[in-house]
Amino acid sequence: MPVLVVGSIALDSVETPFGRAENVLGGSATYFAASASLFTTVQMVGVVGSDYPVDQLDALAKRGVDLSGIERAEGESFRWRGRYRHDLNSAETLETRLGVFSHFRPKIPEKFRHAPFVFLGNIDPRLQLDVLQQVARPTLVACDTMNFWIESRRSDLIDLLARVDLLTLNDAEARQLTEEVNLVKAAQWIQAHGPTHVIIKKGEHGALMFGPKSVFFAPAFPLDEVFDPTGAGDAFAGGFIGYLARSGQVSDENLHRAVVYGSAMGSFAVERFSITRFLEIDQHDIAQRVSDFHRMVSFEQDLIA
Amino acid sequence: MPVLVVGSIALDSVETPFGRAENVLGGSATYFAASASLFTTVQMVGVVGSDYPVDQLDALAKRGVDLSGIERAEGESFRWRGRYRHDLNSAETLETRLGVFSHFRPKIPEKFRHAPFVFLGNIDPRLQLDVLQQVARPTLVACDTMNFWIESRRSDLIDLLARVDLLTLNDAEARQLTEEVNLVKAAQWIQAHGPTHVIIKKGEHGALMFGPKSVFFAPAFPLDEVFDPTGAGDAFAGGFIGYLARSGQVSDENLHRAVVYGSAMGSFAVERFSITRFLEIDQHDIAQRVSDFHRMVSFEQDLIA
Repeated sequence: MPVLVVGSIALDSVETPFGRAENVLGGSATYFAASASLFTTVQMVGVVGSDYPVDQLDALAKRGVDLSGIERAEGESFRWRGRYRHDLNSAETLETRLGVFSHFRPKIPEKFRHAPFVFLGNIDPRLQLDVLQQVARPTLVACDTMNFWIESRRSDLIDLLARVDLLTLNDAEARQLTEEVNLVKAAQWIQAHGPTHVIIKKGEHGALMFGPKSVFFAPAFPLDEVFDPTGAGDAFAGGFIGYLARSGQVSDENLHRAVVYGSAMGSFAVERFSITRFLEIDQHDIAQRVSDFHRMVSFEQDLIA
Repeated sequence: MPVLVVGSIALDSVETPFGRAENVLGGSATYFAASASLFTTVQMVGVVGSDYPVDQLDALAKRGVDLSGIERAEGESFRWRGRYRHDLNSAETLETRLGVFSHFRPKIPEKFRHAPFVFLGNIDPRLQLDVLQQVARPTLVACDTMNFWIESRRSDLIDLLARVDLLTLNDAEARQLTEEVNLVKAAQWIQAHGPTHVIIKKGEHGALMFGPKSVFFAPAFPLDEVFDPTGAGDAFAGGFIGYLARSGQVSDENLHRAVVYGSAMGSFAVERFSITRFLEIDQHDIAQRVSDFHRMVSFEQDLIA
């Protein structure tokens, strides 16, 4: 089943202790699509400026990403410049130029409006709500957000929560949104405002999914080289929703496996700059990493205790 | 099989956002013994001052802890006073009074010298080495350490590493000891200096065990109330080694399960002040929590990918 993603399409310039990249493909929709397209058909909606190297998106088209929802507007593309220090835990934003993204109003093409799985990337909650007005009731709507919207668009974000099935956000954002230090309580707060499921992303410390009656956890894959953390969260979401969309079943078992597939895709994202790694890997690599995850966390209960 | 533990026996005064406790049982050996005694016989070696409320240790004796290795010295007991702020992540030490602990020289009673499992709690690496001189070659020797010894006794600690099978330490300590930011590389560094296994404790973010050829991970249990984090690491070690000692088998499967039992015991430790929680729970509670861990991380691999 296809997945619709609406989000940013950017040009990133990134500096890490291991090197630098200038004006490479970035943005939430781009990372999501690169990751999810390894599982299913992706319908991508966003905006780029007249300076965007659209030919570089061909690699996604070849992977089954429908780019016909990408609007090309007069002006400069969204550009982000950031730096990671030695611990790689948090990006330092050096420059953000919104360009055409500042006037972005998502227009969902008619043929995308019945997508059963929808991911609302990290954009203004008003635009996320606007997308939901344009689509038929999907099987699953997930959305992401960030500190900026929690501060500046709190009431819109709360409205949005009532209309989505799943919210992804990082631990700091969960604490900021809910004013609860404890993540279990933070998740309960969010669930009380709408979503049946909440995924709290903890970066190198893994991801927790809270459901109506259960908690599921997947660690981050312990890599000996984390090259560039940019986009790991959106790659996670792409693996998570891509896996669900491919199977078509939103059972608890599938949701749990989806968290692991999300973690696997997040771990690939950080091995190279930009979406490069996703263009190198195939089903076999993904299965191998999921199998590594399985070995890393699986244990059989014994009957002594 | 019995476990020998050598470590501190303290009186803790702790303040958390949820309350305060004055002069309650604390110290690495105490937490370890309280936890491990739910699995097997524990032989405890340490020192207390003439002011120590030794009758309060009776609760441990009833659980099968042999207290005959606890020396009672003239003077004041080791006292620690600390505070946790709202996020509960790190203790702020307000006062440390070593008392009789500053002259502690572990004397292992003859009947303890053949313990097949040995845990060297967080004390001066010279004393940890001294303990190893006194015992017959055990099946498994594990040791813990901290930033203070890494700074002040680095070369003794490196000598010690060559003589232990397993090192436990937290992520900050692993980075400090190895000067590697990446935890996979940090573990490799430690393994190159002796221990076949390294457990990196990440507090609320779980624990990673690196073996000769594998990595195993258990999350921290997501509690909606973390009451007092003191002693969680030693309770983890008690559950880990206690479980191994009970089963008697140091197979990979058992080591993996032991990490989960360790995490379960760490999660009980933080639910009350001091060792209180361990005096309330029984085998059923432990089995229940391990089963909750199992549900939280288990997934079946599918064959689509």
